[in-house]
Order: sequence, then structure tokens, then C-alpha cells
Amino acid sequence: MNIVVQKYGGSSVADTEKIKFVANKVKKRVDEGYKIVVIVSAMGKTTDNLIKLAKEISEKPHPRELDMLLTTGEQVSVALLSMALIDLNVNTKSLNAFQAGIFTTSDFNKARIQKFKVSKIIDLLKEHDVLVITGFQGITEEGDYTTLGRGGSDTSAVAIAAALHSECEIYSDFPGIYTFDPRRYSNAKKLKYVTYDEMLEMASLGAKVLHSRAVEVAKKFNVKVYCASTFSEEEGTYVVADNIENPVVTGMSVMENQTQVTITNLPFDHAIIYNIFDKIAQKGFNVDMISIININDRLNVSFTIIEEEMENFDKYLKEALSNFNESQVTYEHGYAKLSVVGIGMKTEKGVASRFFKALKDVPLRMVTTSEIKISCLLDKKNLEKATNALIKEFEL
Amino acid sequence: MNIVVQKYGGSSVADTEKIKFVANKVKKRVDEGYKIVVIVSAMGKTTDNLIKLAKEISEKPHPRELDMLLTTGEQVSVALLSMALIDLNVNTKSLNAFQAGIFTTSDFNKARIQKFKVSKIIDLLKEHDVLVITGFQGITEEGDYTTLGRGGSDTSAVAIAAALHSECEIYSDFPGIYTFDPRRYSNAKKLKYVTYDEMLEMASLGAKVLHSRAVEVAKKFNVKVYCASTFSEEEGTYVVADNIENPVVTGMSVMENQTQVTITNLPFDHAIIYNIFDKIAQKGFNVDMISIININDRLNVSFTIIEEEMENFDKYLKEALSNFNESQVTYEHGYAKLSVVGIGMKTEKGVASRFFKALKDVPLRMVTTSEIKISCLLDKKNLEKATNALIKEFEL
Repeated sequence: MNIVVQKYGGSSVADTEKIKFVANKVKKRVDEGYKIVVIVSAMGKTTDNLIKLAKEISEKPHPRELDMLLTTGEQVSVALLSMALIDLNVNTKSLNAFQAGIFTTSDFNKARIQKFKVSKIIDLLKEHDVLVITGFQGITEEGDYTTLGRGGSDTSAVAIAAALHSECEIYSDFPGIYTFDPRRYSNAKKLKYVTYDEMLEMASLGAKVLHSRAVEVAKKFNVKVYCASTFSEEEGTYVVADNIENPVVTGMSVMENQTQVTITNLPFDHAIIYNIFDKIAQKGFNVDMISIININDRLNVSFTIIEEEMENFDKYLKEALSNFNESQVTYEHGYAKLSVVGIGMKTEKGVASRFFKALKDVPLRMVTTSEIKISCLLDKKNLEKATNALIKEFEL
Repeated sequence: MNIVVQKYGGSSVADTEKIKFVANKVKKRVDEGYKIVVIVSAMGKTTDNLIKLAKEISEKPHPRELDMLLTTGEQVSVALLSMALIDLNVNTKSLNAFQAGIFTTSDFNKARIQKFKVSKIIDLLKEHDVLVITGFQGITEEGDYTTLGRGGSDTSAVAIAAALHSECEIYSDFPGIYTFDPRRYSNAKKLKYVTYDEMLEMASLGAKVLHSRAVEVAKKFNVKVYCASTFSEEEGTYVVADNIENPVVTGMSVMENQTQVTITNLPFDHAIIYNIFDKIAQKGFNVDMISIININDRLNVSFTIIEEEMENFDKYLKEALSNFNESQVTYEHGYAKLSVVGIGMKTEKGVASRFFKALKDVPLRMVTTSEIKISCLLDKKNLEKATNALIKEFEL
């Protein structure tokens, strides 16, 4: 059997006309001789609307019952898409998480897939040309519904492709993955290939197209993923282990609304650093671009945090610092984080040097690096100048 | 364990405020020491809206996929009601047809319940005070979703009460069952008791309150059913095997828009009658009040049919009669069917005589009787006079 897994996102099945369009697209692949497993998200804003209903009932809806509620969204989609396929004389059956045997951990609202009843899916594929399976959901060993969290349908699709040793096609509003955000910069170039690691390092480039957790699963099981637009024939982007085109820098990403937090004059003891970040993390704050410098046996710590997520941050940070009266905290707002990523950095020398040369006229507030990524923090007013310089330097 | 089964219809859970009200009502019973199994319908017009979606996809949606679609409606309700109960600190769990193990035949869209995993429900009731279970739905042995047809949630509730040997409370917009339609006649009296047989003979009286199939199941397993309003404390009606109050006539029902169809001059051969009705039934027409009279070795057949359901009827009837050139068909429109029903008729003599005496000034076009029911067909303009006469005669 030639099996291919296709995933259609919520905007691709937002209304019945779009569902019929998708059915025709699936049928084309059937006519090419493939058996198709189609993973579908809930229609349009269904999940958001269900969450709104739940919030009307309870400020903090019970997690198990919330998943019982949310899993209905994909069941509606798979039933409608199956009806549309059957009307096109395609031998089709829809399956929910019970029927497909998608077992997960029992972490409601953020479960992780553990196993599929692969033999059952294979058996059903012998009898049917298409199986339409609910994305985003699973069941526990005890038979409770779970959901996989935002972007979960991507993970469902890649995981089932891994189990079936097949390729995975992810269809959405977006025609692929670009060197940088095409909604922001019209001169962005669509990539033909991008590696798992590049995708993981530059989640913001691909987040709308392919969720990070799905990339992790694809990397782990070496699943070839093709991301393309549902509604156009334009060629998309392959997410693979190695980039055969091997550019030094594959893409660039921007995150605005960054605040730089600096704590100066802490004692020279790294356990203190651990304690401070642990307390902040426990309150649910995400910090980024951590940089620690030791000056005269005193530690100075800088990190960034997204401006919108700073409510009560200062209060909790002061609590965490309550034993260190000599320390001082400063906040600087209005920064942007600019990153370039490329698998080629692992082998190519001098990328950092080219990065700094390109940005020699821009004051950089902070710089952090990983094996395949360089990020800098800069004043928002210098963002355009900096991005243009990097696009030119790395031919993005 | 003191177990009671409660069922709340779609209008009782039409929005989140009503769901919270129902949660409080359920909690009251828990506080009285009961374990409650709550059966819930889909919210308000959800099922109709899902059917509308399906019709947008396909003129004739695939039955198995239609059930896959429709079963989501009740799952939304049970999840929301469970959230509301948990917020009231009631130990609650929601279950769909998979989780409750409600097995049915595989007649999609009109399945019949075959068995429950009773031991599982009992076990869960040991751990929880309330189980909220999806009405209207089941699964086949193969694990496909089924639905039970309109009114199916009533059937779910009565069937589970039968399996648990408990009483069943059916809550809806209606405060109980009346001697005749209270929306039409403000002087209708609410019954304290009505028997299964009376309910079955006068489905139209109770149809909005308790579906006929549910009554059949209640009768078969002798389940005591209490019908009352969700949103008032007013006492409702008990549906039971024997009416301890034992009135001769319990209720009266009216069906308007009846057309009388008369076929005259058929050969004297009852196989012909069977053939004609069989052909009509196969086209999906429901006929009522069948009356057959033999005059001079020629058969004359009369029956009624609802005016709105007559599309193409004449065409099919003519086809069925094509071998009988001598026969003639007439249609008379604008009639109403008026019935009285009462378990007391079985034992009490002279009920028919009282019926005809009361209606002596009204021309009756047809009369049919069963053991506990007398029906007549009359001109719509005489309906008010006739109903008033029967109300007076039988103290309804």
C-alpha cells in the first residue's frame, strides 16, 4: 500500500464549501493510487467557541471535562469531510480517537501521544481508500478523552505518519515556510527545504504552518513533512533532516515587544540564579535570551520577557530577590529580538563575524547564540535597518 | 445505593445559564442522598443545526457519518453540565456512548438499544455521586456511533433506569401530561397518573413530554416514569402500569389536517388490500384510521392521511391500483381526528355508547376503536363543539 498522511487545518475546513474543496483534493490523490489518512482540525473558530462556552460555565473548567467538550470539534469535521468524500464515491470512513485507538498520557489539555492501534488502521485501509481521523485528540488507557494542546492536529498527523512509515502533508492557509515573515516583508523567499533543527530554532517562522511539537516528533522518527497551501497548487516546503541546498543561513525571525530586565550586583553564587529563575518559572513567566556576566565577583543578569506577559512580574521578581538587598533591577522596554538560523552554521566558519559586520551600525543590547542560531536584541527603531542588512548579507 | 435516573431535554440545557440551573437541581437530589444518572440531550437547536450542516454537504448524508456528526451534540451538553456540577463540588463524571458502553443495533439514525455495561456504570457510581451520560446515542459492536432517532434521549433514560432497576424522571418544558393539549385548551387538567397503554394510544398528548418508544421500554421493564417541568416545582405526572385513580377516560387528543381517502369498488380479496397498503408504506406514507367495508362483494376502503404528507401520494396510489380499473378514489380534505383514551374502557361497559351520545349532533365521517381508545373523524368546523361535549361527558 502507498499510504500518505494529509492534515488539513481549521481554516481549510472552516465551512462546508471548503470541506467539499478538500474532499476533491483528497480524491485526486486517491485517483493517483494512494491510500490516504486524513487528519482534520475543528472547523474555523469552533475550538475557541467551545472554550468560550466552557468559560461561561466555570472560570476554571475541569480539565477532563474540557477535553470531553473540545474533542467534539474535530468529530464534526471528520464526519462532514467523510460525507463529502462518500458523495464523490470515495470509499471512506471517519474515526475519532476511540475508533482509531489513539492512546495518550492522561495530562488533560496537553496530553502526549503514546501509541496507535496501527494494525487496526492498516486493516481499515485495506477496506477503505480514505480514513478521516480526528486530529488534536486522544484517549487514556481508562477511556477518557484528552487533547494535545494548541497545534495538536499537526502532532497527530506527524505521529500517525511515523507509525505508518509514510510521508506527511500539512495543508493550511500558508503556502510554505519563508526566509522571514512574508506578511511583514513582501520580499521574503519561500524555502524549498528546511531542516527540523532550523524549524525548532525558529519556531516563529513556521509556527502558523507546523507546530513545534510536531517538528520534534518528525525529527525523532525522521518523518518527511511537506507544508503547502490547501487552496493553491503552488509548491510548498519540505521539512527534512538535512537541507540538501545547505545555505549558511536559512531564515530570519523577529520578535517585537521585548523588555530587557537587568539585575545587577548579586552575590557570585550560581545557585542564586537557579533559585530566581525557578521562582519566576513557577509563576508561569517565560524568559528568553538569558545572559549572565560576572564583574568584580558580583553577578549581573540580563534577560528578555514579552511586554504583554509582564503583569505582576515585578512583584514576583522582588519577592525572589528579597534576600539580596544590594541588588538592583532595571526594565528597558521597546526592544526587538532579531535572529538568524541556519544548519550551515554548524560547519561554516565566520557566520557570527558576518552577522556583526552586517549590523555594525546598529547598537546591539544583547547577543545570544546556539549552534545554528544567532540572536540579538536591539532598539525597535533600528529594526528595519538591521533586517535589511541581514537580508543582504545572507541573501535571504 | 439509592439510584435515580434523570433526563433533561434540549430546551432545559439550551444555554449555559440553564445548564447551571439544571446542575443546581441535580445537586439538590444528591444532597437528599441519591446517586444520580443524568441523561442529557443536545443543547437547544444543536441537532437541527448539525443536520443543516450535513445537508449543505450532501443531499442524502451517509447514515453512519450522520450519526458520527450528530453524537457530538450530546457530548457538548454532558461536558458542560459536568463542569457546572464539579463547580458545585459534586463528584461528577461525564460519559459518552463509548464510555458508558451503550450498545445498539447498527440501524444508523434509528438504532435500538441492546445492552449497557451496567457493571461499569455501577462501579463508576460507587466513585461518583453523579454520572452525566449522553442521551440519544449508542455504539455498535464494531465501535461505530449510532443515534436512536427523534426522542431518543427519553429512550436512553428509560432504558438505563430499567437496567439499574431505578425510577426515571423526565424533565422538559412541560409540567406533565394533560387530559388534552393545554396549549390549545386552557381548561385542560394535568393528570397525576397515566398508564403506559394510555400514553401509547395517545402519543400526541405526551409526545412533547415522553417519546412513544421510551414508553414502550418503560412498559416492557415496568419502569416508573415521572414527567415534570425543569424550571418549576409544580408536581408532574407519573407514567405507570396501572392507574390507581382509574378514570374511564383519561385523556382526549386531536389531530387536525386529516384527509380521508376512499377507494371504492375493489374486488373482494383481502390480499389486494395488503398489496395496496404495502406499496404505500414502502413509499414512506403513514396512513391511519383504516376502515374496510364489504358491500355486495365489492370492497370499499377508507383511511386517513395527514394533508402535509400527501406529496405524490395520488401518483403512487394510482400505480398501486393500476390493475383495478373499476376502482375509484376520492379525497376529502379539512377533517380532524378526535380520540378519547382510557384504561378503564377495558372493564367499564358502555363507553362507546356515552361517546356517541355526547357526539349525537356531530356528523362522524369514520369511527375506529381499540381496547382503550375510540377515535372519530369529523369536519374541522365541528371540532370545538365535539371536544366540549366530550370534556363534559367524561369530566376531562
